Amino acid sequence: MGARAGIVVTGTEVLTGRVTDRNGPWLAEQLRRRGLDVGQVVVVGDRPDDLRSALAYLAATNDLVLTSGGLGPTADDLTAEVVGDFCGRPSAVDEALAGRITAIVERLMSRRGWRVDPAATEAGTRKQARVPHGAVVLEPVGTAPGLVVPPAEGDGPPVVVLPGPPSELQAMWPAALEAAPVRAVLDRAVELRQDTLRLWGTPESELAATLRRVEDQLAGLEITTCLRDGELEIVTRYAPDAAAAYAHLVDAVRGDYAATLFSEGPDVDTLVAGALEERSLTVATAESCTGGQLVARLIDRPGASAWVPGGVVSYANSAKEQLLGVSAETLATVGAVSPEVARQLADGARARFGADVGIGVTGIAGPGGGSPDKPVGTVHLCAVGPDGVVTRSLVVPGDRAAFRKRTVTVGMHLLRALLLGGPPA
Amino acid sequence: MGARAGIVVTGTEVLTGRVTDRNGPWLAEQLRRRGLDVGQVVVVGDRPDDLRSALAYLAATNDLVLTSGGLGPTADDLTAEVVGDFCGRPSAVDEALAGRITAIVERLMSRRGWRVDPAATEAGTRKQARVPHGAVVLEPVGTAPGLVVPPAEGDGPPVVVLPGPPSELQAMWPAALEAAPVRAVLDRAVELRQDTLRLWGTPESELAATLRRVEDQLAGLEITTCLRDGELEIVTRYAPDAAAAYAHLVDAVRGDYAATLFSEGPDVDTLVAGALEERSLTVATAESCTGGQLVARLIDRPGASAWVPGGVVSYANSAKEQLLGVSAETLATVGAVSPEVARQLADGARARFGADVGIGVTGIAGPGGGSPDKPVGTVHLCAVGPDGVVTRSLVVPGDRAAFRKRTVTVGMHLLRALLLGGPPA
Repeated sequence: MGARAGIVVTGTEVLTGRVTDRNGPWLAEQLRRRGLDVGQVVVVGDRPDDLRSALAYLAATNDLVLTSGGLGPTADDLTAEVVGDFCGRPSAVDEALAGRITAIVERLMSRRGWRVDPAATEAGTRKQARVPHGAVVLEPVGTAPGLVVPPAEGDGPPVVVLPGPPSELQAMWPAALEAAPVRAVLDRAVELRQDTLRLWGTPESELAATLRRVEDQLAGLEITTCLRDGELEIVTRYAPDAAAAYAHLVDAVRGDYAATLFSEGPDVDTLVAGALEERSLTVATAESCTGGQLVARLIDRPGASAWVPGGVVSYANSAKEQLLGVSAETLATVGAVSPEVARQLADGARARFGADVGIGVTGIAGPGGGSPDKPVGTVHLCAVGPDGVVTRSLVVPGDRAAFRKRTVTVGMHLLRALLLGGPPA
Repeated sequence: MGARAGIVVTGTEVLTGRVTDRNGPWLAEQLRRRGLDVGQVVVVGDRPDDLRSALAYLAATNDLVLTSGGLGPTADDLTAEVVGDFCGRPSAVDEALAGRITAIVERLMSRRGWRVDPAATEAGTRKQARVPHGAVVLEPVGTAPGLVVPPAEGDGPPVVVLPGPPSELQAMWPAALEAAPVRAVLDRAVELRQDTLRLWGTPESELAATLRRVEDQLAGLEITTCLRDGELEIVTRYAPDAAAAYAHLVDAVRGDYAATLFSEGPDVDTLVAGALEERSLTVATAESCTGGQLVARLIDRPGASAWVPGGVVSYANSAKEQLLGVSAETLATVGAVSPEVARQLADGARARFGADVGIGVTGIAGPGGGSPDKPVGTVHLCAVGPDGVVTRSLVVPGDRAAFRKRTVTVGMHLLRALLLGGPPA
């Protein structure tokens, strides 16, 4: 492999899980596209010693180090100062930069109509305008400037200092790529491809046997497999000169898993959205146990309003009857958690929203509500479209959150099987 | 601070963001409750060298090291072997353990009705049954056993090796706590409290001024502040002997931010759920731009079926009319994105689900759909209940994902203000 990069994500709120980091994965993907391989992401709290030792750890084995977070106005935001010290470059206030930050803060405050304490704002602004000697300043997108700090001694990697809010970090990224110390690293990088094969219904241990069988044809490939929510992903990274080895892998997987290979690239969400768009079809949902997560996942994609008129979340049986036309008799005889009600939910969603496709989900997410007949995790799904009907009944293991996530993925595969065929849902 | 722990999360799928890590934060919280402070979480891909250097980095400054992931049957699952080597303890197959894993795998396969290749299963099983000499085995919850590996030389921290799937890791955790090398570390730990104050509508820079003013009364507190989705969280960790300092902090925040302090502990979701439960009220939703994320967030809590009969996601105007009774005339005159429609959505949700409280959300998530009058990010919310009506109109900055997340949080504060008063939504 060519050049490598390491990432430090700062923030006690990330370390403790109150905030989920989106920056580490985003930066890793941006860097990979430019041929820089990311081997480690370190999350540290807002403590100078921990940040310093994380920088030392990453600087030892990487050509570039990036940080996100810790650029705010409060005392626990200490990244710029610590990075400056680490690189042997003492910091001082950049007066012109302080003036630009002040103007930004005043505009923000007045737009939000928040009362402002000028003294508080000034102390914070001057803190944010401190720049290590010789560093490249990346202009603020929010209020905090970013930095590219080259090592004073010339023998370590440059450190790119970026803000924590993902929208600010992403907007600042093009400027970081243009900074001379970063360009020098990128010039040493070589292309690194990443391709994905996706199976639905194959256990990881079987795939392991296939990989062992063709092992000697796979030189130059870095293959990782991941089973989640019933999907088995095979992600391969390789330099362009290993393209023939990747073709061998694809052949082997096609040969052994024709019945479960559902994609040689796009994920199930992209396949479903593409099929709906191409055929100008719409889909409406009727959910109980997944509580809106299925419609939310469909609507996650920009432009979804063209193919999702909406959905109903019907926890109460009365809502199932009145909003979706589920029969009171069916509810009384076989119960809400049944294949019959899943079908009526799908039909109801289709009819009420005037959609081409309807999907219904009914089950028991737990922790309460189970019975010997219908244990927690029992779920029935049904998708109805112009070409037919696809159903699935199963018992999903795991807790409430795992149940909902897995069930929503099964729902996406129901739509995929209905619209595109391939492995059964 | 007393004893410290460091966590390594393995898996290229986590490093690249295809899977979001839930284990690092969960373990950090479990350890904090037992007085172990977690300073770093390192995410590494499935490469032995990177795992080895991460272990060395964490072992240098911690009393306990934990790993999650990399215990599966495929070749890229290499944690147990690398940890054994790192601790100076070579691994060998534990035949009795191999037998127990085989029985588990056969049961799983037959339950799922998957076709099984016995040779593949056996190779994977024997790999999973390899145990470093002298390590404590934690019985499998899925198919993979965990391990507690003491250092061979006696001068490093013990390493706890746990599986990647969160439900397996969590189920195995009590056994890990019982292992003798872990108990020895826990015996050295002292209680570490964590308390949170929550503000709605105060900028971080103002809070910084308050903290600076009372700085000399806050000795022994580790304070971190975090602004997200408009909420400002002040999280403080402290040993029991700093309780008086924490009381000073609470007094200062109460004094300066009486108008925006909405909680001295529970988050807004807990406050809303508690108010609904206590007063035996129900709430129904009608969303457009948030696409089901508001109802999904309400239903995230176990037991939510008692207070959420359901919700409608109505992207299409026809769905707003037919499912929620929004007037065609209002839609034609002021448009779907308007305070009037937000009100009619709230009324419609309340009426159609027979709920005590209805909440309506209508806006433009983008990237398309904006206009000079109604730019992307425009959103109107309305909550109607037995005691009155609360509304909010705003323009939310950021991309589609940020818009939806922030808008859902505003929705939760609308319900909080309606049910409990306090800072306006």
